[in-house]
Amino acid sequence: MTVKIGVIGTGMIGRDHARRIQNVLAGAEIVALSDVNPDGAKAVQSDIAPAAKIYATGEDLIAAPEVDAVLVTSWGATHEQYVLASIAAGKPCFCEKPLATTAEGAKRIVDAEVAHGTRLVQVGFMRRYDAGYRLLKQVVDSQIGAPLMVHAAHRNPTVPEQYITPMAIHDTLIHEIDVFRWLLDDDYVSAQVVFPRRSGHAHAKVADPQIVLLETKKGIRIDVEVFVNCRYGYDIQCQVVGEEGLANLPEPMSIVTRKDAKLQNAIMTDWKDRFIDSYDVELKDFIEAASRGTASGPSSWDGFVAAITSDACVEAQEKSGQIVPITLPETPALYR
Amino acid sequence: MTVKIGVIGTGMIGRDHARRIQNVLAGAEIVALSDVNPDGAKAVQSDIAPAAKIYATGEDLIAAPEVDAVLVTSWGATHEQYVLASIAAGKPCFCEKPLATTAEGAKRIVDAEVAHGTRLVQVGFMRRYDAGYRLLKQVVDSQIGAPLMVHAAHRNPTVPEQYITPMAIHDTLIHEIDVFRWLLDDDYVSAQVVFPRRSGHAHAKVADPQIVLLETKKGIRIDVEVFVNCRYGYDIQCQVVGEEGLANLPEPMSIVTRKDAKLQNAIMTDWKDRFIDSYDVELKDFIEAASRGTASGPSSWDGFVAAITSDACVEAQEKSGQIVPITLPETPALYR
Amino acid sequence: MTVKIGVIGTGMIGRDHARRIQNVLAGAEIVALSDVNPDGAKAVQSDIAPAAKIYATGEDLIAAPEVDAVLVTSWGATHEQYVLASIAAGKPCFCEKPLATTAEGAKRIVDAEVAHGTRLVQVGFMRRYDAGYRLLKQVVDSQIGAPLMVHAAHRNPTVPEQYITPMAIHDTLIHEIDVFRWLLDDDYVSAQVVFPRRSGHAHAKVADPQIVLLETKKGIRIDVEVFVNCRYGYDIQCQVVGEEGLANLPEPMSIVTRKDAKLQNAIMTDWKDRFIDSYDVELKDFIEAASRGTASGPSSWDGFVAAITSDACVEAQEKSGQIVPITLPETPALYR
Amino acid sequence: MTVKIGVIGTGMIGRDHARRIQNVLAGAEIVALSDVNPDGAKAVQSDIAPAAKIYATGEDLIAAPEVDAVLVTSWGATHEQYVLASIAAGKPCFCEKPLATTAEGAKRIVDAEVAHGTRLVQVGFMRRYDAGYRLLKQVVDSQIGAPLMVHAAHRNPTVPEQYITPMAIHDTLIHEIDVFRWLLDDDYVSAQVVFPRRSGHAHAKVADPQIVLLETKKGIRIDVEVFVNCRYGYDIQCQVVGEEGLANLPEPMSIVTRKDAKLQNAIMTDWKDRFIDSYDVELKDFIEAASRGTASGPSSWDGFVAAITSDACVEAQEKSGQIVPITLPETPALYR
Repeated sequence: MTVKIGVIGTGMIGRDHARRIQNVLAGAEIVALSDVNPDGAKAVQSDIAPAAKIYATGEDLIAAPEVDAVLVTSWGATHEQYVLASIAAGKPCFCEKPLATTAEGAKRIVDAEVAHGTRLVQVGFMRRYDAGYRLLKQVVDSQIGAPLMVHAAHRNPTVPEQYITPMAIHDTLIHEIDVFRWLLDDDYVSAQVVFPRRSGHAHAKVADPQIVLLETKKGIRIDVEVFVNCRYGYDIQCQVVGEEGLANLPEPMSIVTRKDAKLQNAIMTDWKDRFIDSYDVELKDFIEAASRGTASGPSSWDGFVAAITSDACVEAQEKSGQIVPITLPETPALYR
Repeated sequence: MTVKIGVIGTGMIGRDHARRIQNVLAGAEIVALSDVNPDGAKAVQSDIAPAAKIYATGEDLIAAPEVDAVLVTSWGATHEQYVLASIAAGKPCFCEKPLATTAEGAKRIVDAEVAHGTRLVQVGFMRRYDAGYRLLKQVVDSQIGAPLMVHAAHRNPTVPEQYITPMAIHDTLIHEIDVFRWLLDDDYVSAQVVFPRRSGHAHAKVADPQIVLLETKKGIRIDVEVFVNCRYGYDIQCQVVGEEGLANLPEPMSIVTRKDAKLQNAIMTDWKDRFIDSYDVELKDFIEAASRGTASGPSSWDGFVAAITSDACVEAQEKSGQIVPITLPETPALYR
Repeated sequence: MTVKIGVIGTGMIGRDHARRIQNVLAGAEIVALSDVNPDGAKAVQSDIAPAAKIYATGEDLIAAPEVDAVLVTSWGATHEQYVLASIAAGKPCFCEKPLATTAEGAKRIVDAEVAHGTRLVQVGFMRRYDAGYRLLKQVVDSQIGAPLMVHAAHRNPTVPEQYITPMAIHDTLIHEIDVFRWLLDDDYVSAQVVFPRRSGHAHAKVADPQIVLLETKKGIRIDVEVFVNCRYGYDIQCQVVGEEGLANLPEPMSIVTRKDAKLQNAIMTDWKDRFIDSYDVELKDFIEAASRGTASGPSSWDGFVAAITSDACVEAQEKSGQIVPITLPETPALYR
Repeated sequence: MTVKIGVIGTGMIGRDHARRIQNVLAGAEIVALSDVNPDGAKAVQSDIAPAAKIYATGEDLIAAPEVDAVLVTSWGATHEQYVLASIAAGKPCFCEKPLATTAEGAKRIVDAEVAHGTRLVQVGFMRRYDAGYRLLKQVVDSQIGAPLMVHAAHRNPTVPEQYITPMAIHDTLIHEIDVFRWLLDDDYVSAQVVFPRRSGHAHAKVADPQIVLLETKKGIRIDVEVFVNCRYGYDIQCQVVGEEGLANLPEPMSIVTRKDAKLQNAIMTDWKDRFIDSYDVELKDFIEAASRGTASGPSSWDGFVAAITSDACVEAQEKSGQIVPITLPETPALYR
């Protein structure tokens, strides 16, 4: 069976996902497109999916009978409405981050899905599909004993002027917030943020670097350096310390050279290259679940918990040095 | 356009390629199957490609009007006849190694394809599609100056009793023979084999390890350790020494752990895992070219040169320590 | 000129330093020994320094006219009195850690040395002499821009029953406390200690692991994982994050092997091996300065600051999660 | 007991060894100096060993009653005569490479020492004292099973105009020739040299790079790349392949940095830095043996075998591609 997919939002990521579904992955095809900017939808139609129909609104696309499943890759503020509409239509829906712009919005999606009774939503936390994190999870689950600590770093070479302090949480740390819950099978109970000496390369509106300290229910302590003007590269580090040993996230594959008096490996500088393979894998997972009328992978509950945790981390930024508690409602049975 | 593919030979590799085309990759589907053992074809039909038709012979499959392109994954001795039939039918053909069991057979294929006038054949030298070798080629082509030497190793943990000395060339070194021609854009002029102290783990019919020394037209010297009872893992090493620096094939991704007084990475032990991702990529390349009625990647000329070179290496094994010349006819224009 | 040295305290470390001075390093000889246990002194005399004279008390040894310089390697509680006596005698004095058992005691030594007017005391903080830390300091000073953060770990495979929670500061972290001041040319302003999930391998009287968070005057944030039952090895990690890049303390030299499906390096398990070479270098430095009637390297001021900082860290352990300020008097001119 | 040492030849290496003995190592002092250029001897006297007496000739120095042991660091062509004179005087003698300029000369020294009946000569093959090679030997002897192959490289960034092809053996490979005999406890039976594509950076009188292939009595096959215009650094590589696994010579300690989009370690460029620590250790060994009236470490037999092997390798250069046998007389009992 070929899953017929409609894409709402044909910007960079929507267009790229359309290409994956149409040209790379087996099992699905793009049958419908919608964008507030009709030219974007038309460009994807002519370049990638000539047989796709263009709809005036996301709601129209969701309602279209030929659409089996929906990709929400529109502007973040519109995600909630389209996901809710997909749930109302009983159609599997892949939603890029954020699931909603507020924790309340995410909660509304959770409630709708719980009311529906089966999973329909996958959130685009692609790191769970990264081969490196998957290998790390295998090792953490089987070789190093109970996890006690995680030392991590999320570094970007540089960020633009509009990147302000809370974005270090909402746009950057958000990936660690989700992937560590999955990696450790745990939830957060508190957050603290401390601000080291500021880098001279940080522009005026961002405190950079920051260190975020998280504590989990099991008592695991996580420290994440967020450094978005680190200059040297896009670098994601994660070390899990367990009772019996340590495990590190692998470095991305690169060639070791000996040249110019240096033994060296290239470090990536563009974040888009770092987890590029995982996009194929997450969409393959979406297609397989959608062909069975459901969804798997990161759930709306995961999106909701990420939102709650982000809000606490932003509060911890504002109360520099103080420990801010994180309280979650009980996990609904659907997501256990 | 969806490329309609027929598969001749539904053993392990044929079945696995059928799964890739049907379930993993966009752009193609399996429409026909054939196997000397009809049960194999039926199993693939029922498990993977229910709509595929089963043909009594490879020739029937090739002739079938719904078949756009052919996969030859049958027993090695039958490759030549099916590839020749595909060329005669003007259909793109992917042929697993070996292209033919003799250099003469490979030459007949080359001649038929040259007579046809455009490329139709891709040989299954998958290493050219491996992400590590591709990165290495980029670096070799751009960063280390003219290549002067290659130091390489091909190590297997163990081999069965039926693995005899010449198989170190035909089954093992064959991958290096092809991939170094591509990596260096060069051809061989001589081969020498020397036999180090024998491993106590080698059974009676195989001299193990061996060192194969190759010289290229450009004067590059290549040494390849072939060690098929190395015990510790399946390990492929390649270092290119250039005028300005060195580059190494990356190690496969693995988790670094600190445990039991060791800083350690796992080394693979099963060869099937080592280049598994490259099978997807080579078939994707085949599908794309086949959709245009042609073939790309490793050609029948590459298959022929590999056969000539292998024969010289086996002669060099027999004349231990002597340098055996390798002479090639001029490369036809089709393959330049 | 040969520096004539008297050793007070002939236990394991005193005996080993005597061996270094007598048998390894040029420029000095052991002429006097003293120990509360006279058999220890006699054993060193007969095994290492036959010409050395044995004195009944440390004070007698310090007063002896043939003694140019003093090594204090006795029980920690006696260090202060012998160092003060050496200063009173105007003789250079190498004192093993701790300089004194209280910050007040260390301050009395500082005051005495300041009153004397020139440096006479070197404290046994050997990491400043380690080749790895020295290389790291060179790189930190020249290649990575202003330091912003330090991520560090001090891990022991196991500790005995008598190792209790505050010893994680006084016996373990004390080395980081000193070496980071030197590495960063900075002082501390606050400390915080958080306690991760406890390792099941920790005995009842020690909270293990701990994470100590230090802030410096320049605003550098340091996190040190102290994990004394980590099982896998004795492992000292230090990464400095600067404005332009990062630098890591080198791993100790070890052989890379490929064996048993693992690419592996041995990790040390005995702390005594880790900085063994630095003992030779620190004593060489002591001998050279002593031959000029003075002392260099880690000073009594460094010993005093380490004591003040340790006390704050222990308070931070007791007030788990709270940030404890660290206040230092102004650095006397002698130590600037 | 302090060993009283006379130094013949006060050039760069003689002066440096004098400094080690006088200022770094316990147990010896420089009491005598001699040089064909008296100013060199005077400079060492005034800078390093004020109490040393200057002798007009090496023979006078050797005969001087206050001289217990002799360091021969003069011009290579004079080594044989001074070593023979030391043996005749029954005085331990450390001789820098080469022991003699011909195999015949080395044999005369062996014969004289055998006639004397105990060892008196240590040859300056310092790699045997390098911490990395020593660790490697431990691992080779205990962890990887019987050695079967060695893959090695000796690379220099550049060489001057006067460096001609045979110097790749006499000045460069000579170190590998000696250290592999010690590492493997084996001797050579044949040599072959092949010449890869020439580097454009090699000047006219040197074929560069070269690959030297050695076979040992036990059947171990050694390949050594000698590349003296490799540009990127001074780099010594050695991998031993055994029946159970592989072991590599460690890289010299260096700081890993992340900077400028590179994960990088510095590679040395000056050969003088690479084994600098081993000079201290070899002289310490000399002093200890000399204090007992004898010598240990690399013997005159080792020097003689290195000369025989070098001659065969030069012949193998001249007969490019041919295998040249290496025949050694039986090892005298003194050296077994």
